[in-house]
Amino acid sequence: MDKYVIGVDFGTDSVRALVVNVRTGKEEASAVAYYPRWAQGLYCDPSKNQFRQHPLDYIESLTACITDALAQLPSQVAEQVVGIGIDTTGSTPCAVDRTGKPLALSPEFADNPNAMFILWKDHTAVQEAAEINDYAWNHSPIDYTKYVGGIYSSEWFWAKILHVYREDEAVRNAAYTWIEHCDWIPALLSGVQSADAIKRSRCAAGHKAMWHAEWNGLPSDDFFAGIDPLLKGITKNMPQETYPSDQVAGTLCPEWAQKLGLKPGIAIAVGAFDAHMGAVGGGVTDGTLVKIMGTSTCDIMVAPYEVMGNKLIRGICGQVDGSVIPGMVGLEAGQSAFGDVFAWFKKVLLWPLIDLSDSGMVSEELVEQISAQILPRLTKAAEKVAIEETGLVALDWLNGRRTPDADQALKGALVGLNLGSDAPKIFRALVEATAFGAKAVIDRFRDEGVEIEQVIALGGIPKKNPFVMQVAADVFNMPIKVTESDQTCALGAAMFAAVAAGEYADVKEAQKHMGTRFSETYYPQAEQAAKYQAVYQKYLEIGGLLEDSLRKL
Amino acid sequence: MDKYVIGVDFGTDSVRALVVNVRTGKEEASAVAYYPRWAQGLYCDPSKNQFRQHPLDYIESLTACITDALAQLPSQVAEQVVGIGIDTTGSTPCAVDRTGKPLALSPEFADNPNAMFILWKDHTAVQEAAEINDYAWNHSPIDYTKYVGGIYSSEWFWAKILHVYREDEAVRNAAYTWIEHCDWIPALLSGVQSADAIKRSRCAAGHKAMWHAEWNGLPSDDFFAGIDPLLKGITKNMPQETYPSDQVAGTLCPEWAQKLGLKPGIAIAVGAFDAHMGAVGGGVTDGTLVKIMGTSTCDIMVAPYEVMGNKLIRGICGQVDGSVIPGMVGLEAGQSAFGDVFAWFKKVLLWPLIDLSDSGMVSEELVEQISAQILPRLTKAAEKVAIEETGLVALDWLNGRRTPDADQALKGALVGLNLGSDAPKIFRALVEATAFGAKAVIDRFRDEGVEIEQVIALGGIPKKNPFVMQVAADVFNMPIKVTESDQTCALGAAMFAAVAAGEYADVKEAQKHMGTRFSETYYPQAEQAAKYQAVYQKYLEIGGLLEDSLRKL
Repeated sequence: MDKYVIGVDFGTDSVRALVVNVRTGKEEASAVAYYPRWAQGLYCDPSKNQFRQHPLDYIESLTACITDALAQLPSQVAEQVVGIGIDTTGSTPCAVDRTGKPLALSPEFADNPNAMFILWKDHTAVQEAAEINDYAWNHSPIDYTKYVGGIYSSEWFWAKILHVYREDEAVRNAAYTWIEHCDWIPALLSGVQSADAIKRSRCAAGHKAMWHAEWNGLPSDDFFAGIDPLLKGITKNMPQETYPSDQVAGTLCPEWAQKLGLKPGIAIAVGAFDAHMGAVGGGVTDGTLVKIMGTSTCDIMVAPYEVMGNKLIRGICGQVDGSVIPGMVGLEAGQSAFGDVFAWFKKVLLWPLIDLSDSGMVSEELVEQISAQILPRLTKAAEKVAIEETGLVALDWLNGRRTPDADQALKGALVGLNLGSDAPKIFRALVEATAFGAKAVIDRFRDEGVEIEQVIALGGIPKKNPFVMQVAADVFNMPIKVTESDQTCALGAAMFAAVAAGEYADVKEAQKHMGTRFSETYYPQAEQAAKYQAVYQKYLEIGGLLEDSLRKL
Repeated sequence: MDKYVIGVDFGTDSVRALVVNVRTGKEEASAVAYYPRWAQGLYCDPSKNQFRQHPLDYIESLTACITDALAQLPSQVAEQVVGIGIDTTGSTPCAVDRTGKPLALSPEFADNPNAMFILWKDHTAVQEAAEINDYAWNHSPIDYTKYVGGIYSSEWFWAKILHVYREDEAVRNAAYTWIEHCDWIPALLSGVQSADAIKRSRCAAGHKAMWHAEWNGLPSDDFFAGIDPLLKGITKNMPQETYPSDQVAGTLCPEWAQKLGLKPGIAIAVGAFDAHMGAVGGGVTDGTLVKIMGTSTCDIMVAPYEVMGNKLIRGICGQVDGSVIPGMVGLEAGQSAFGDVFAWFKKVLLWPLIDLSDSGMVSEELVEQISAQILPRLTKAAEKVAIEETGLVALDWLNGRRTPDADQALKGALVGLNLGSDAPKIFRALVEATAFGAKAVIDRFRDEGVEIEQVIALGGIPKKNPFVMQVAADVFNMPIKVTESDQTCALGAAMFAAVAAGEYADVKEAQKHMGTRFSETYYPQAEQAAKYQAVYQKYLEIGGLLEDSLRKL
C-alpha cells in the first residue's frame, strides 16, 4: 500500500499544499490558496515598508489548499497520508498569548497590525536593527551577531519585536511570548494549548534569533535589557532548546484531522523556512548554491563540519548547525528584492492607466489586459538591447540589502539616464542589477572560502522568465540548473514529513528516493559574460559611492 | 499711419511669427508652423543624441507662419511692415557652399544629416569638445575658452564642425564655410548670394565660436590646426567682424517679399539666439535673471561694463559684449534639459501603450488620449506628495549639463528608489531636480559676484505648469515673475526689428515703448524653501559623488 506525505509551503502571497508519494517522490496533486486579507492590501503600508499578515489568512488558506489537493485524488489517499511538513517565510514573527494563540485572533486585537505576523519583508524596524548591532558590537561582552553574518537585520525577529514594543503598549502587555510563523503552524495542527509547549524551529531561531550552541541557546537577558529595558525578560517564556525539521513537532490533533479529512495522530514535522526546505527539495549538497528566486531571493548552501571548522562567514544571513540538513551547517544569504524590482517597474509604468481607471476614464478590464502584457513585452524588448547600449547601471536595493552585509536602510538607484533611456533599456538595467546583486553574494561566499561548484535555481522566476535566467548565468559565468518541479519548497517540506514520520532514516535518504529532477540548464555565453564583468565593476563602484547617501535618504 | 514689425522665433520644434505694432507694442497676430521632417523624427537618433534639422523645414515653415499671421490682419498691414527680426536656437551650425547655401539644399546632400543644421541639443561631439578644452587649457598660448565660462561645450559650433569633419569627408570637402541658423535666415531673406557677404551674429559668434575683441575676432588658425589638422584653415572664409542685432543684416529681397506678401527693401535685423532676444522681450535689465524655460533653459543676464570690469565668470556659457543689449555685457547660462526631462518620463510611462499600439492591440487614438493626460495628471498627483515623502533625489543631467561647468558627458540619475517609489513621487523628484539644476546656476552667478535681484520667466513651461514654477520659486527662495506674452522671444525679435528699421534709437527705447507685461508672480513659501535647502544639499552631494562615474557610462 502506497503512503503519502503532504508538504505545505507558505509563501508571501499564498500557501501551497503538495501531496507526494513517499516511495516514488511523485507529486500526486497540489493546490494553492491566496491569503484573502493580504490580497486586499489590508494592514500594510508599502510606502513605510509595513507588511503584516493576519493569522486568519493562514488558517483559512491552509484548510483550503490541503482539502483542495486531496479532493483531486481517490478518497483513500487521505487515509494513507502519514505526515505533514511545513515551511513558511521568515523571519515572520508574531506575539502570542499564554495559550500560544496569535494576539490578532483575540477580538481586542483583531484589527491591530502589531498583533499580526510581521512579514519577512516588513522593514519598519530599521532603527531597532541598528541599535541591536550597535549594542552587540560595542557594548556586549559577546558579539551575538557573529553567526548571522556580523550584522543583525531589520527583517529579523528581535528588531521587529522591539519596534512593536516601542510603538504599541497594548501588544507589549498582552504578549506572553513571540513565535515564528513556522513554529505556529505545526503547533496549530498539533493542537498545542500552551505557548511553553511549542517546539521552536532550529532554522528560524538560529538564523533570525541569534540562537547558538556556543552560548547554549538565545542571547542573555542582560544583552536584551542593555539594548532597551523594554526587552528585559523577553526570553523568559522562550525555551532554550530548538529542533531541526527531521524531528516531530507533534501529531495531528482530532479537530484539524477532521477539518482536513486526514487521520489524527500522523506526524507533523518541525517547521522551517521555505528557502531551507526548498534547498533540500532542490537537491542541495556540499558545493551547491541553491537559489530560491521569487519576489526576493534566498541563497542556501550546506557545509560539512570539517570544512566549516570555526570559520565565520562575514555578512551573510547566518550559519546554523542543522538548519537545512541535520548534521551539516546551513548557510543562508539572499537579496531583499528580486522579482519585486520588476514588479515595481511594472507598477510605475502602469500608473497612468490605474489613475485614469480610478477616475473612470478607462475600464478596469483594459488595465488588467495591459497589465498582464507589460512584463512579457518589456522582456522581449529588453532582450534586443545590447549590454553596452543601455548606458545605465541600476542598484537593486529597492527593498534594502540582505546580503552581502545586511543593510535595510539602503535603497535602489538608476544611474546614467539620458533622453533616449526608454522603458526596455531601464528594464534591462534592472534585470542586470538583480543579477549583479546575486553575483555579489556568490563573490562573498567565495571570498570567505566556501566553494561553489554549481547553481540550482527554483521558485517563480526561473519558470517565468528565461531572459532573467540567461542574464544571471552570464553574469555569474556559471551554468544554472532549474528544478523541474515548480513546487520545490513544498517538495522539501514533504521530504521532512517523510523523515519525521519514520519513513526514511534521514534527509539524504529522502532526497535520494523522492529526489529532484531538472528541466533546463542556462549556460553562460562567453562574450556576454566578459561584457558583464565590466558593468559589474561599475555596479560595485557606484554602489560604493552611493551607500552613505542612500542610508540618509 | 501705424507701422508694424515682425518677430520670427525659430524654436526646437516649430517657428512662430509675431506681428507687433511698433508704437504700442500690441501683439496684433501670430502664427506657428511645425517643422514637417523633424516632426517625423527624420535625420535624428535620440539614443546617440543626434539631432539634425533640414533647411527645407525652416524655409517651408517660415513662409507658412508669416503668411498665416498676416492673413489674420487687414490686408494693408502687410504694406506697413517696416522690419523683420529673427531669433533661432543655437549653437545650430550648418555647412554652406560658396553661395551661402546649406549643403543639404544640394541634391547630393539632400539626405545627409551631416549637411543639415546640427541642432543645439545634438551631443554627438562630446569627444571633440573634450579635445578642444584640452588644447585650449594645456597647449594653446591663449585660453580661448575664458569668455565662454572656461569650458567649451559639445553643444557648440567648433565641436560640431570637427565631429562632422572627422565623420564625413564629402561634407568636409564641399563646405566653403559654416554659419549659424541665426546667420542664415537673415541672409536668406536678404537674398545674399555669397557666403562672404553673410553678416555674422555677435551673439552666436561670441557665445559659441569664441569670438572676442581681446584677440580681434575668432581664435587663430594655429589654435584650430593644433586641435586637429582637419580644422586648419577653418576660419579662412569666416569674417572677423560680427554684429549685434540692432544692426541691419540686409533688406528684404524681391523674391522673398513676393513669397511673404511684404514690401521689398524693408530692414532685416541681424539674427541672434532665441534666449537673448527673449530676454530683451522679457524686460531684461541689470540685476535681472531672465529664464527661458522650455525643453531646456537659457538663463540670460546683462551687466554694465563698470560692473564687469575684467571679471571672468567661471563655468557659464559666455560673456559677450552686446550679445543681448548693445552697450552691455550679455551673460548666458542654462540647463541642457528642463521640459525634456518631464517629456522623457512621460515617454517612459507611455511605452507599454505605444508598444501595444505598434502591434495593433490598442488604438492610436487611445494612446493619444492617454498621452495628453499623463503630464497634467502626474502633476496633480505629485503636488500632493510632501517634499520629505519622495525619499528620492534625481540628477537633471539627462542631456548633459550646460551650466555650471558645461559637461555634456554627464547623465541623469534617480537615487533612493524603494518599492513604494511610484510615478508621482518620481515625477516630483524630477521636477525638484530641474529646479535644483536651476539653483546651481543662480548660485554660480552669485558666487562670481553677479547680483540677482529678480527672476523673470518666459517660455513654454511657465505658462503650462504652475506646479513646476512654484517648486522653482521655493527652491530659489525668490519670487518669479512670468511674462504675459507667450511669445516673448518673438517680441524681442520684433523690438530688434524696430531698432534696425530706425523706429527707435536703441533697444532700451524699444523695450520702453513695446515693453513687457507680466501675468503672475510665484512667491516662495518659507516652510517649503527651508525643506528644499536640505534636499538641495543632497542633490549637490550625490551629483558630486557620481560625476566621474556618469562620464564613463
